[in-house]
Amino acid sequence: MAGEFDLIERIKARIASRDDVALGIGDDAALLDLPQGRQLVVTADTLNAGVHFPHETRPFDIGWKALAVNLSDLAAMGAQPAWCTLSLSLPDNDAAWLDGFLDGFLELASSHGIALVGGDTTRGPLSIAVTAMGWVESGKALRRDGAQVDDDVYVTGTLGDAAAALHSLFAGAVMDRVLRERLDRPMPRVAAGLRLIGLAHACLDVSDGLLQDLGHICERSKVAAHIDVDALPASRSLRRYAPALRRDWQAAGGDDYELCFTAPPTQREAIARIAAETQVPMTRIGKIVAGQGVKAFDAGGVEWLPPRAGYDHFR
Amino acid sequence: MAGEFDLIERIKARIASRDDVALGIGDDAALLDLPQGRQLVVTADTLNAGVHFPHETRPFDIGWKALAVNLSDLAAMGAQPAWCTLSLSLPDNDAAWLDGFLDGFLELASSHGIALVGGDTTRGPLSIAVTAMGWVESGKALRRDGAQVDDDVYVTGTLGDAAAALHSLFAGAVMDRVLRERLDRPMPRVAAGLRLIGLAHACLDVSDGLLQDLGHICERSKVAAHIDVDALPASRSLRRYAPALRRDWQAAGGDDYELCFTAPPTQREAIARIAAETQVPMTRIGKIVAGQGVKAFDAGGVEWLPPRAGYDHFR
Repeated sequence: MAGEFDLIERIKARIASRDDVALGIGDDAALLDLPQGRQLVVTADTLNAGVHFPHETRPFDIGWKALAVNLSDLAAMGAQPAWCTLSLSLPDNDAAWLDGFLDGFLELASSHGIALVGGDTTRGPLSIAVTAMGWVESGKALRRDGAQVDDDVYVTGTLGDAAAALHSLFAGAVMDRVLRERLDRPMPRVAAGLRLIGLAHACLDVSDGLLQDLGHICERSKVAAHIDVDALPASRSLRRYAPALRRDWQAAGGDDYELCFTAPPTQREAIARIAAETQVPMTRIGKIVAGQGVKAFDAGGVEWLPPRAGYDHFR
Repeated sequence: MAGEFDLIERIKARIASRDDVALGIGDDAALLDLPQGRQLVVTADTLNAGVHFPHETRPFDIGWKALAVNLSDLAAMGAQPAWCTLSLSLPDNDAAWLDGFLDGFLELASSHGIALVGGDTTRGPLSIAVTAMGWVESGKALRRDGAQVDDDVYVTGTLGDAAAALHSLFAGAVMDRVLRERLDRPMPRVAAGLRLIGLAHACLDVSDGLLQDLGHICERSKVAAHIDVDALPASRSLRRYAPALRRDWQAAGGDDYELCFTAPPTQREAIARIAAETQVPMTRIGKIVAGQGVKAFDAGGVEWLPPRAGYDHFR
């Protein structure tokens, strides 16, 4: 078994750098050069084995997802990813596992130009804590508190796929490949987030279920939202897997890592153009109205109630 | 049991902010204003229960230490602490535990003016991952790669106390209060690090044992070091607890969180003044010489060999 320093060397040997990384892994801390006129955007999210991903998840996918959920937060702010740290707790020193993990982590990092600049490896139950940093032009970030009455509500991509994959996993069903990929390798909507700056009034990433997350926008913006539950975008795999349950998973599942945002109706054409250019579907699913809370209605106008409030690690 | 969002509210209600935190906890990510002419200094360190602290450690001390080990890395760079994120994995939702933890974390944070700007709470085995950010004037950071032949080697404070405390704990001995405090509440040498900018040629924090850590300075600086093992600073508690073992713990123990730095002999007076003004002892323990590796000698000039190579989480 190799020691901790070999692990760090193993990581160090594989990472790409950036011109603004004055000093990367190998000192007490990293030194990073800062651009002018920008704000730093910082987010931290942890994945624990058996809680945030099934134990049998492939190391590649664990590495991918650990970074993806953080990039998704940067995307929701409209930020350009720059740097990240990785704190990796491993039950034992398994070089093949680590290589697989890094394959996934670094493939996604490289495709977004984000540099791994520090972190540590420790012994402990499998847990991956990532802090991601990025940039926005000062004052331009997409926040949760800017939604306005009469805004349209949008969501990117499709909803409910990851929740369906988890259901399938627990049910021991034959797993649909698309659903499984949506659970294991979420695609952070970084390009879409960057393009939405100046257009969207409010934005967040959907990770704990659409209704619960949209509730945060409403609360912070002091508005309410009405959602058409039959307008929520569904993949073909989801429609096929469980038509009767799909609305539950779309409205109140978790692990979607899509963006939910609001924008004035005057921006509909611009948003359609961005969707086409980024090849990320952007579906209009409801309206911001005066009041508080989020209500969902079906196509017939009847109020639809979610089966549960959303995902909460401590419930 | 309260849910995850209550936990976050509980944290949010207690934290102090800073003027440069444009948006703190409560959105997808934090927004931070950047000063001019500075470099960002970033470090990440994790503590796992039973690995980095004994299971019976008080929550206050766990909170303190989780931040302290990160501040110690910033100190070693000569950085001014600014912001941090906290990723907290908890086996259950124990509000009293969390309050105690935050008491310790925030007391230390407040004394260093560092703002908690983000993070998450998840369910899982007890683990605390912190990423700390700070500032240095561009190009001025204390790095590991600047040591020069003929430099003096210094260490702050005293060494070996935490290792002695661990020994005492495992031996079931009556614990000396001072040793226990040195294990549970290390004092990051932030003020000392800031004052060493422009004086020290190289610096790091001693966390894995002096000889091993000083070896990193030598390796990065392409020099060697000779250490006087009988000159290593020892607390009265350590001398009393186990005189025969103290050199082992001082040279090759762990968890010291003191600074080890090198500086030219022309700076001896300046360093004595800084030690007096910061009330942090700075002891000259050896010299940088040509060659590679670290050698220790006793007061009689006989080479002294450490009992083990230093602490490594995977050995």
